[in-house]
Amino acid sequence: MKFYNVGASGNAYKVRILLALLRVPHEVVLLDLAKREHKTPEFLHLNPRGEVPVIEDAGAVVWDSGACLVYLARKHGGDQWLPIAPAPMAEVMQWLSLAASEIQFGLQYARRGLMQKRWTAGTLEQGHAISRVALGALEQRLASHEWLALDHPTIGDVACFPYVETASESGIALDSYPRIKAWLARCLALRF
Amino acid sequence: MKFYNVGASGNAYKVRILLALLRVPHEVVLLDLAKREHKTPEFLHLNPRGEVPVIEDAGAVVWDSGACLVYLARKHGGDQWLPIAPAPMAEVMQWLSLAASEIQFGLQYARRGLMQKRWTAGTLEQGHAISRVALGALEQRLASHEWLALDHPTIGDVACFPYVETASESGIALDSYPRIKAWLARCLALRF
Repeated sequence: MKFYNVGASGNAYKVRILLALLRVPHEVVLLDLAKREHKTPEFLHLNPRGEVPVIEDAGAVVWDSGACLVYLARKHGGDQWLPIAPAPMAEVMQWLSLAASEIQFGLQYARRGLMQKRWTAGTLEQGHAISRVALGALEQRLASHEWLALDHPTIGDVACFPYVETASESGIALDSYPRIKAWLARCLALRF
Repeated sequence: MKFYNVGASGNAYKVRILLALLRVPHEVVLLDLAKREHKTPEFLHLNPRGEVPVIEDAGAVVWDSGACLVYLARKHGGDQWLPIAPAPMAEVMQWLSLAASEIQFGLQYARRGLMQKRWTAGTLEQGHAISRVALGALEQRLASHEWLALDHPTIGDVACFPYVETASESGIALDSYPRIKAWLARCLALRF
């Protein structure tokens, strides 16, 4: 299995976490963003978005971090990380969707903007407002549960973890989200 | 099954399409946005995002359009609409993610902005730039395939369809995307 990565990507970090948790042997292909290796015709053929992560495995090419998590969970994770019964699978999917929408265009966006001084989808304040929708949903869930979906860790937790863990780099303090802080500690205790 | 809907939501339209395709009996609960029925404590308890669609069925509550599609496909769609083998499932998931990210914050955002004169995540031009990432990914895939994932319709097509179909309401002409236009016609021919 080839895993295309760059150093600072939280989206690729999701995949790194699950590869570690499931102990999946793989080869890392590190792309050089400065050389725009993520925008070559060859790479755009693998992923039309021109982004990491991408996985190549046994003839399959998977782009998008959520799709990579689904692939690895179904192939190597048994039923724990992504169950296939309708209600539990949908519960996990809710958090994959939140990671792809409000977390991506809120927390990830604000972090990238602050790091790169580049604003392509609104101001920092707008990014923070979107972030707070995501953080509110997490805090509400975690008020009565230990994990985002079901009663054990799933790829829903893995998908939401990276950009919530780096919330301070997005300019957001988590002091008013005590349940999220406790959940981050539980995630880290999984030792990936 | 209860299906919470509002009139103009493309995200709820995804669920309406799959309910029709799979002929799932259901009761529609129509929320009045003017009365802010999507922001009541009762509704926020069902969905912390305060949005439609939401499904309530046999004790399960599912928020998020992608998660609702997963729930319905797994419960009523057999293996066609969402296969469970790793590679095909990941292929479908790629398009669910695109629908939750670039389609949502590009096409949906621009359409809502133009309809409601409300801009909460950047300008129209920024929304269009994000939209074009999504449309480029679709056009590239459809250059050599009839459907977004696999060789038959899946919930990946259902998830991407609504806001691509209404691209003109987002201020985007599809004339330079001939494969997408042909795919929209194939989707409509499914007669939902």
